[in-house]
Amino acid sequence: MKLYTFDSAPNPARLKMFIAYKGIDVETVQIDMAKAAQLEASYTDIVPEATLPALVLDDGSRLTEVIAIAHYLESLYPDRPLLGTTTEEKAMILNWNHRLFNTVFMACAEIFRNSHPAYASRGLPGPADMPQIPALAERGRARLGLALTTLNSELGLRPFVAGNALSFADIDLLAAIVFARWGAKVDVGEEYPHLVEWRARTDAALQA
Amino acid sequence: MKLYTFDSAPNPARLKMFIAYKGIDVETVQIDMAKAAQLEASYTDIVPEATLPALVLDDGSRLTEVIAIAHYLESLYPDRPLLGTTTEEKAMILNWNHRLFNTVFMACAEIFRNSHPAYASRGLPGPADMPQIPALAERGRARLGLALTTLNSELGLRPFVAGNALSFADIDLLAAIVFARWGAKVDVGEEYPHLVEWRARTDAALQA
Repeated sequence: MKLYTFDSAPNPARLKMFIAYKGIDVETVQIDMAKAAQLEASYTDIVPEATLPALVLDDGSRLTEVIAIAHYLESLYPDRPLLGTTTEEKAMILNWNHRLFNTVFMACAEIFRNSHPAYASRGLPGPADMPQIPALAERGRARLGLALTTLNSELGLRPFVAGNALSFADIDLLAAIVFARWGAKVDVGEEYPHLVEWRARTDAALQA
Repeated sequence: MKLYTFDSAPNPARLKMFIAYKGIDVETVQIDMAKAAQLEASYTDIVPEATLPALVLDDGSRLTEVIAIAHYLESLYPDRPLLGTTTEEKAMILNWNHRLFNTVFMACAEIFRNSHPAYASRGLPGPADMPQIPALAERGRARLGLALTTLNSELGLRPFVAGNALSFADIDLLAAIVFARWGAKVDVGEEYPHLVEWRARTDAALQA
């Protein structure tokens, strides 16, 4: 199998942390999104979705969604599990993955893609151009604030996003917070004390 | 455990099909979204996310995302599997679930929520009001057309969304197409011949 990715982009970044924590060795090709290389035929002939990351399996089939790539890799490399071991843990981590993607991560993407000059005709990922919608960047900011406030409250009640142990959900949130800073100019600082504490805890757990 | 839902809403509808196909018997409470009952304290005291469906487990923890509820239920009730049995199948079905949610399903939701008069201040699900963005309804229509064209091509190559067997991904797409018709006034007809054939195949498989 072969992983196509661009490590510094937000969605690839969370997969990179997952792979690094688990110590997985996978053949990797960087596709330079800064030069829009994901839209070139040399890539879209392999991955017509024109998105990154993508894991192409040996039979030629491809996984284009981070959550699916992570589940596939965790099945092959179960050590240092990040997707849960009991039925309840697995469900809760999957729940948080989906929820974080559709709240805090999507809010950052809405802000970034609908306001950055370099994305003037690229309001959505994928092969087709889409105009920016400035009102969507504004809504994204409102959404992001609400999501961070809720997460701050919840992380006052337990050490990690999905419960008592580090999981992929923490990596998801970490990647979103990094994205919020550079892509949306929103800093998760003292206004969110539980998030600041959680982040220190998560950074330490990822280094362990 | 107890399932809170509203069977006729698009996101609950796909969970309803999943449960019906597998013949699962779960205690269910209908929360009338037509009367905005999901925003009342009697519900938000239990599910602060104010979204439907939600599965509340016996320890009080809650799953609010359909994909997580489906995975949890399939673990408890493995008969008539809809989420795959091999590592590859499981990854591919999860991939399609995420991809369909973030393309065709989200496109329909963007159209519906940003154009229907009853949702004037409800541009997003959840407890907070959000203004409608008419340009987002328009973008949703462009996105939906592109997504359906791509799916039509792909379903000319294999019988079901995620491969050779019926899966939850087919239910996801079926629910999205039903939503497209009433929520977005987009009919998946002769323009998409492979989708029409796939739909007949899926309807038959679900009845089997």
